[in-house]
Amino acid sequence: MTTDRTPIRIAVDCMGGDRAPREIVAGALAAADVYNLRLLLVGVPEDVTPFLPPRAASRAGEPAAPTAEVPGVEVVPSDRAVPEGAPPLATLRAMPNASMSVTMRLVHEGRAEAAVSAGSTGPTLLAAIREIGMIERVRRACVGRQILEIHPETFLIDLGPTIDCEADHLVEFATMGATYMRVFGGIPEPTVALLSNGREPGKGNKVVKQAAELLGRSGLRFVGFVEGHHLAAGEVNVVVCDGFVGNAVLKTVEGLGREAAKWLRRELAAELPPGRLGEVADRLIAWTNPVEMHGSLPLLGVRGNVVMAHGASDRAAIQAAIGQAVQAVRGGFVAKLRAALAETRGRISRTSAT
Amino acid sequence: MTTDRTPIRIAVDCMGGDRAPREIVAGALAAADVYNLRLLLVGVPEDVTPFLPPRAASRAGEPAAPTAEVPGVEVVPSDRAVPEGAPPLATLRAMPNASMSVTMRLVHEGRAEAAVSAGSTGPTLLAAIREIGMIERVRRACVGRQILEIHPETFLIDLGPTIDCEADHLVEFATMGATYMRVFGGIPEPTVALLSNGREPGKGNKVVKQAAELLGRSGLRFVGFVEGHHLAAGEVNVVVCDGFVGNAVLKTVEGLGREAAKWLRRELAAELPPGRLGEVADRLIAWTNPVEMHGSLPLLGVRGNVVMAHGASDRAAIQAAIGQAVQAVRGGFVAKLRAALAETRGRISRTSAT
Repeated sequence: MTTDRTPIRIAVDCMGGDRAPREIVAGALAAADVYNLRLLLVGVPEDVTPFLPPRAASRAGEPAAPTAEVPGVEVVPSDRAVPEGAPPLATLRAMPNASMSVTMRLVHEGRAEAAVSAGSTGPTLLAAIREIGMIERVRRACVGRQILEIHPETFLIDLGPTIDCEADHLVEFATMGATYMRVFGGIPEPTVALLSNGREPGKGNKVVKQAAELLGRSGLRFVGFVEGHHLAAGEVNVVVCDGFVGNAVLKTVEGLGREAAKWLRRELAAELPPGRLGEVADRLIAWTNPVEMHGSLPLLGVRGNVVMAHGASDRAAIQAAIGQAVQAVRGGFVAKLRAALAETRGRISRTSAT
Repeated sequence: MTTDRTPIRIAVDCMGGDRAPREIVAGALAAADVYNLRLLLVGVPEDVTPFLPPRAASRAGEPAAPTAEVPGVEVVPSDRAVPEGAPPLATLRAMPNASMSVTMRLVHEGRAEAAVSAGSTGPTLLAAIREIGMIERVRRACVGRQILEIHPETFLIDLGPTIDCEADHLVEFATMGATYMRVFGGIPEPTVALLSNGREPGKGNKVVKQAAELLGRSGLRFVGFVEGHHLAAGEVNVVVCDGFVGNAVLKTVEGLGREAAKWLRRELAAELPPGRLGEVADRLIAWTNPVEMHGSLPLLGVRGNVVMAHGASDRAAIQAAIGQAVQAVRGGFVAKLRAALAETRGRISRTSAT
């Protein structure tokens, strides 16, 4: 058991992300000021150590103190991150000590209780699956998030990893999304719906129709289908779709928020002071772009706590991602996912037998 | 050939839609003031005729003049519309003279050059397919539209009818969308893209990947994949997806526009006069809800001009839908669709042979 007295051991991939390693290291250290952490900073040592604070006041020109000497911080050597755009699987195989792989390995080995990476999505996700493995019988990893800051009570899942889905996958996403909203959203019995092209029974594509049948006897609080506008209005807690649809919806929301902000700047240019107008436009962008702005996504389905931070993450975003990892560890998130998945499966198989 | 001197013959389903028959008839008559039309008003005669203008000044209490006497207007008797929520196929079979079926039949018989209906989508679409038939070799009907009023240069297709798609369907949608933007958008060589989960080659679900391969040799100006934010920013002219995805995106845009308008009302309540604030919020709703606000969708793939108006259409929306039907007739839209589809198919089959 982890209590506030025992430091939580977090592995941080310091090489992944547009602003690595400087902002990653800074964010990790900032998180360590807030939470009781033991940080495993994974990266190429000569790239990472310059950003660590010297142990004592250093003289001008003197290199920073060796990392082992910063209390609660250990640098774990790795190679660079798999770069954006490289074929994930082939590159991970060719780079066995890529930073994301080493980071995930620390979780597998039990040296860390959670991993955080701002590395590019494909390789990071694949590294987690390869190094940590999946929860028993889960076949696909997924990510979800509250996609509108004004509706934190609504979580959309999957947002990308699983593009071609079967009904069973959607049921797993629903179960994991509901567990997420219990642990992170503070909602004891989240409502769950499938994103579809209409609310009436009979709507949906083939896979969605099958999933509706399964979810109806899953024990989850399944309320049927919702459409995009119900999602936008925050009507249910967990909205389930495949990663292709979720990605399209997420990106559309992000883009539309930016377009609306641009429009607002033109429309109200003569009526609001520039500073205030900029502030309103920026707020609109922020609440439609929560993933991009300060977004971290727990990777669901993997047998360990993995938080994927946005590639553009700055130190504040990394600190927030680590905060999410801490919450996952403290909430026993993976154990709860496992239990919920077993419960859903059990109910579905019992009801099909009758 | 239709010239401005020859009246264009439009069949209007006066029974379909939330505000039928009053607003439908009023919209049709208003359109006849603008365009040179011969109107075939389809409906239950005793429901429709009260909304026709009397032939001459009527005495108080006297019923309206019989419809045959209004110049350029003929009432074509039918039964009621298939109601919202009724199973479309079974109900159309049980009601052979449902208003949408009779309306479409007039196009099939050559008595009308175009049909307009605000009836519920499923039955209207199915009536069109059953009564008019499909363009040769086209297997699926589709609808598309400029989904953001601020980006009329970008058309999203399909928005709903075809939920489970194959790659061939997406190629047909792309071809018909490009033809639409030539005829209605005034863009000689529209760019075409597939909506996907990333821009890089290799992205997409199975069907989208296959469609990309076909579109690459279709002769269309195919520019690859776009994501939701490119759609929102108006980066390409025709964005292609299956009806499930298109519907999710469309409804999300509509809902998000409404949410953003609500937020704006709260955020700026102290800074703008109420009237002006209401105006700005309404404008934001309007440009994110063009289909719902004044939306008519030409049904593509059918061997005749069919315009589906929104169920909530008022007289102005019906007038606009008839305007779109007129433009389709004048532009020789169906002949152009047929030619474009043959051209795309020819190119794809020639390149696969080499």
